[in-house]
Amino acid sequence: VKPEDRFVERLKELLPLSPSVLIAPGDDAAVVQHAGGPLAATTDVLVEGIDFLPGEDPERLGRRAAAVNLSDLAAIGARPEFLMLAIAFPTELGEDYPLAVVRGTVARAGEFGATLVGGDLSAAAQTMIAVALWGRPAGNPITRSGAADGDVVFVTGFLGQAAAGLRLARDRANAAARGIPGLSGSEERALLDAYHDPTPQVAFGVALAREGIAHAAIDVSDGLGVDAGRLARASGVRIVLEKTALPLSEPLLRFGEARGIEPAELALAGGDDYELLFTASPEDAERVEGVARRLAVRATRIGRVEAGEGASLRDGSAERDIVSFGHDHFQGKRA
Amino acid sequence: VKPEDRFVERLKELLPLSPSVLIAPGDDAAVVQHAGGPLAATTDVLVEGIDFLPGEDPERLGRRAAAVNLSDLAAIGARPEFLMLAIAFPTELGEDYPLAVVRGTVARAGEFGATLVGGDLSAAAQTMIAVALWGRPAGNPITRSGAADGDVVFVTGFLGQAAAGLRLARDRANAAARGIPGLSGSEERALLDAYHDPTPQVAFGVALAREGIAHAAIDVSDGLGVDAGRLARASGVRIVLEKTALPLSEPLLRFGEARGIEPAELALAGGDDYELLFTASPEDAERVEGVARRLAVRATRIGRVEAGEGASLRDGSAERDIVSFGHDHFQGKRA
Repeated sequence: VKPEDRFVERLKELLPLSPSVLIAPGDDAAVVQHAGGPLAATTDVLVEGIDFLPGEDPERLGRRAAAVNLSDLAAIGARPEFLMLAIAFPTELGEDYPLAVVRGTVARAGEFGATLVGGDLSAAAQTMIAVALWGRPAGNPITRSGAADGDVVFVTGFLGQAAAGLRLARDRANAAARGIPGLSGSEERALLDAYHDPTPQVAFGVALAREGIAHAAIDVSDGLGVDAGRLARASGVRIVLEKTALPLSEPLLRFGEARGIEPAELALAGGDDYELLFTASPEDAERVEGVARRLAVRATRIGRVEAGEGASLRDGSAERDIVSFGHDHFQGKRA
Repeated sequence: VKPEDRFVERLKELLPLSPSVLIAPGDDAAVVQHAGGPLAATTDVLVEGIDFLPGEDPERLGRRAAAVNLSDLAAIGARPEFLMLAIAFPTELGEDYPLAVVRGTVARAGEFGATLVGGDLSAAAQTMIAVALWGRPAGNPITRSGAADGDVVFVTGFLGQAAAGLRLARDRANAAARGIPGLSGSEERALLDAYHDPTPQVAFGVALAREGIAHAAIDVSDGLGVDAGRLARASGVRIVLEKTALPLSEPLLRFGEARGIEPAELALAGGDDYELLFTASPEDAERVEGVARRLAVRATRIGRVEAGEGASLRDGSAERDIVSFGHDHFQGKRA
C-alpha cells in the first residue's frame, strides 16, 4: 500500500458518515445527494516544481488544471457543470499571470460545458493552482469498487506519452538537447502536447455511465501500475494486464528507441495520461467498443480481472507485480 | 481601486455569460442554478507566511480554512452543506500533518452542518490549504450590490481583535515579549483566539437571508475600510461610518493602550475578523436587532449609506477616506 493510499484510509476514519454522501472520499470524485438529484464533485491541485515545471506557460497550466479535474469527473461518469479556481502565485509576476491561468481554465472547461463561477487569489513563493469542479452523474456513478472476477480491462487512448513529453519538456527547460535524433517535429509535439495539454475523456466517461456498461473505472493520473492497483484494491480483485496489449503510440515507440527507454515502462510508471482504465463484463465488451467507435475514442482491451489481489503485467510466461509503478503524492517531486 | 479589485474586473471580462450563473464572481460567493434549486459556492486559499504564520498548529489551520469559507457563504445568506479540501505541504512533515488539517476542517465545518466529501494532496515547499465549499441559499442571496441611500450600516461582533491577535502571535513566534503588560491572560487569549479560530456568522447570515431584511452584505475579511469600500462600490453608493460607534472589545482597548496603537486603526485595517458588514433600511433596523438578540449575536449600527461613492469614517466633525485601509491580495505578506 502506497503512503498516499494509507493516508486516504486514515482520512476516511476521520470523516463522519452522512446519509447524503453517496460516494465518499477515496474515489475519483465524491457524489452527494443534493435537493434535485446527486451532485458529483472533485478537487485537484497543481504545484509548481511538483506537478509542473517552473516557468511553464500560465495559460496552458490553467488548461491543464481544468483537464485533470474534468478527468476525475469523467472517471465517475459525470457531466461537468461548474468550477472554482484558487491561485497562489509570486505576486512579482503581476496580475497578467493569474489572468492567463484563468483564461486557460475557462477555455478548457468551456470545451466540456463547464463554467467558471468563482475563485480566490493569494501571494505565495511558488505557484499553486487548485480547481474544484462539480457536475451531475450521467447514470449510476462508476466507482473504483465494482470490478468483478472475469471482467475485461480496457483503457482509453495511448499511455506513456505524457511521461515522455515531461522528459522532453524538462530537457528543454534545462537547455539540453533540442531536437531528439530519430523523432520528427510532429512526433515531438505529440508527446509534449500529451504532457502540457491532456484531453480528458469526458464524453466517453459520460457514455459509459449512461449505458451502464462499466463495472469500475479510475483515471490514469499517477501511472497505469499504481492506478490499476488502486482499482484492484478498491474492488477486492486482481488485475492482470498483457504487456503486448498496451496501447503505445508511434511517437512513444520512437522516443523509447532514441532514448533507450522501454516504452512500456513509461506507460506503467509515467502518469499524467488522464485516460480511463475501466472494466466491463466480457458480454459487454463489444458494446464498449461500439461506444468507442461512435465517439472516435480508442478503447483497448489490455487485460482481465481475476479473483485475488494486486495488479500485474504479463509478458509471455513472465508476470510481475506493478502496483508500485507510478507517482505517490507523498514522495514529492515529479516534474 | 485596489489591485485585487481591478483584477476581479478584468477577470469578469474573461468569463462567458451563462444563464445558469445567478450571482457571478466578484461577490463573496457565486450562486448558480442547479436542477432542484440554486447552489451557492465559494473557495478560499490560505498560504503559509501570507495568511498564517509559519509553524502554526495544523489542526487550527484546518479549522480556520473552514471558517473563512463558511464566512463567505454566511455573507451571501447560504446554508453550508459540503466542502472539499486541497492541501499542499512539505512532505517531510509527514502524513500526520495533513491529517491534523483535515481533522480541524471536519470539526469546524461539522459545527455548521457541512460535510467534507473530497480532497487532494500535493508536496510543496510551503503549506497551502484551499477549501471549496457549497450550500443552499436560505432565501434570496444577499449580494454586495443592494445597499441603498438611507440604509443603516451594521456589523456583527467585534472588530480588530484578530489583527491584535496576529500581532501577539507574531511576537510569540519571534520569541519576543511573552505576556503584555496591562493585559490579563484571558484578554490575551481572547485576541489570540479571534485570530487563530474565528467564528463565522453562519446562523446570522442565514437568518438575514431568510427574513429578507438585509439589502447588501460582505464579510469583513480584509479590513473594515477596504471591505466597506467594496460594498459601496458594488452598490454604487457612499458609506459613512462613525468612529465612536465601532464595536471594540475590552481586550482590544487594553491591547491598544499597552502597545500605544489606536484600536480603531486595527478595526479599519486589520482584517481577518470574519464578521458580517451589512445594510438594511431604517424601518427594518429593529427587526435586525431582534434577530441578533434571538441568536445572541452582537449587531451594531456603525453608520449609514448615502448617495455618492467611497467609504469614510467620521470622527466628530472630521471625516476621512478609509477604502485603502486593509489587506490587498496582490500586496503579499500579511502574516
